[in-house]
Amino acid sequence: MKLSDAGELSLLQILRKRFSKKSGDILLGIGDDCAVIGARNAKTLLTTDMMIEGVHFDLTWTTPYQIGFKLVSVNVSDIYAMGGRPKFLLLDFAAGKHTSMDFFNDFLRGIGKAMEKYRLFLVGGDISSSEKIMLSATAVGYASRIISRKGAGIGDKIYVTGNIGDSACGLELLKRIKKPVDTERSDRIKFPLKRDIIFPLIKKHLMPTPRNPERFKSNATSMIDISDGLLIDLSRLCKESGVGAKIYLEDIPISDELRKTSEYLKLSPLEFALGGGEDYELLFTARPDKNVRTFCIGEITKSGIKVLDSAGRPLKISIKGYQHFAS
Amino acid sequence: MKLSDAGELSLLQILRKRFSKKSGDILLGIGDDCAVIGARNAKTLLTTDMMIEGVHFDLTWTTPYQIGFKLVSVNVSDIYAMGGRPKFLLLDFAAGKHTSMDFFNDFLRGIGKAMEKYRLFLVGGDISSSEKIMLSATAVGYASRIISRKGAGIGDKIYVTGNIGDSACGLELLKRIKKPVDTERSDRIKFPLKRDIIFPLIKKHLMPTPRNPERFKSNATSMIDISDGLLIDLSRLCKESGVGAKIYLEDIPISDELRKTSEYLKLSPLEFALGGGEDYELLFTARPDKNVRTFCIGEITKSGIKVLDSAGRPLKISIKGYQHFAS
Repeated sequence: MKLSDAGELSLLQILRKRFSKKSGDILLGIGDDCAVIGARNAKTLLTTDMMIEGVHFDLTWTTPYQIGFKLVSVNVSDIYAMGGRPKFLLLDFAAGKHTSMDFFNDFLRGIGKAMEKYRLFLVGGDISSSEKIMLSATAVGYASRIISRKGAGIGDKIYVTGNIGDSACGLELLKRIKKPVDTERSDRIKFPLKRDIIFPLIKKHLMPTPRNPERFKSNATSMIDISDGLLIDLSRLCKESGVGAKIYLEDIPISDELRKTSEYLKLSPLEFALGGGEDYELLFTARPDKNVRTFCIGEITKSGIKVLDSAGRPLKISIKGYQHFAS
Repeated sequence: MKLSDAGELSLLQILRKRFSKKSGDILLGIGDDCAVIGARNAKTLLTTDMMIEGVHFDLTWTTPYQIGFKLVSVNVSDIYAMGGRPKFLLLDFAAGKHTSMDFFNDFLRGIGKAMEKYRLFLVGGDISSSEKIMLSATAVGYASRIISRKGAGIGDKIYVTGNIGDSACGLELLKRIKKPVDTERSDRIKFPLKRDIIFPLIKKHLMPTPRNPERFKSNATSMIDISDGLLIDLSRLCKESGVGAKIYLEDIPISDELRKTSEYLKLSPLEFALGGGEDYELLFTARPDKNVRTFCIGEITKSGIKVLDSAGRPLKISIKGYQHFAS
């Protein structure tokens, strides 16, 4: 069965039924001209991110379930990166008339899985036909105290919440495997490296799970999520804070899986870690006297961004990251 | 100059500069991971609407300026339809790499014009490359009292805020004229009917301006905006309210321009009025003892939707309206 056999109104009915679960402060959910949320005594956070077929994802190696999960995750990542709690979601879905109902249902299953994980509620959206699949989500969150990109002070330590580079390496693997990989089931993939090595990398790319900053956010002086790449996102944080940074190369957390896979691919794990994007780990700063239990990778300086090797020598490096429309 | 010559970061800079105007309660606008809005003692309204090239608009007869203006307007219409005041906007923009900077700037001029008109502030968004142009906006508004689709009572009078059918007729004209019409300047259009007759219809389609319900909203018992068509939107309101309606055909406000153009096109003005969409007028109900100064077109009944002619006979009519994915 295809979307054109169902029609827009049936799809809306499916959405409305599937996501009927309500939180107390949703005064009106899906089904009227707007969603209505009760007043709250907290700052409101708003963010939106698109995912477009052929640009953000490739159906050759991505399942609709994974696309749905990731669409929610990348939006949640922006809320977490401000120190907020995500709460509501609006969803735009556009696809070709010949898209199957299975695709739609599998996509919604991914959306639902992620919403459950992050405790989000779907309150509205829009559905349209299109040629390529075009998705967009808007997440609404709340926070009593905001952690912006501005606020890093000279001498602050720089932290990341997890391994860097895995996602970019996962994408590199998918480009070679050229078929969907269901990392939650025991898919057999014809690839010279073991499942235990490549699946975590692939999963990090297809189904990233942003870090909730609750545990350490009281110590953070500035924060950003790593979506476009460690160095480019660090440079954004530094620009907004009016400071510089030095990073110790050997302190950047690199997973064993990334090391082994890079070795096999004859590529540098550090290239993945410094220039690759979509890890959706948090990058934040904290005063040096604070006890922060995650990976410290450097410190804030007066100006410039330097990456130092184990002998303390600065690497010659250009700051790269994904940019749309780049020539 | 093309978007690919500028790159995503330059486009973001343009947006950030152009829409730097701030309202007091925007704690953080464009440029961080999220926008941050101060707490408010009012209900929050959320809505999102997409506009996709080849589905919602045709570049053969639409300028980027008009597209930008309409994208904001259709979202504002949903906020007005709940009795709310629109306040903030998030914008998703995706277009091909070879799209010109002129297109982007003209589109932003339309967005800016509409934001000024409705007193909106741009607080965030996302930019991506794509094949076809894909646009989405999310509007955030506030209201102390909500007017939903639910609430119409038997005996309530039914009102619309302006002429119905103009937009659908305007689209029909554009399909024949087959080139962009700048209704704000004195474009010469080769068409047998006068500019004064066809321009208002074309403008209603390309640059709709939703009605602010402030003047009458205290009397409204239920409300919806007419986006998909008078009868389909009326039937939605009735369904949510658990009631029916009878409409007096001769009371539906039809503009002189629509009458004259329909005559020329040998089409029925009532077909445009009953089945055509995108007028973005408000349809609402009020208790019969209230003095409401706008077009009364019928009243709420127990069940069923009837359209009565001048002799009081019910018309045989099927409720049509635009539906995506419809076969």
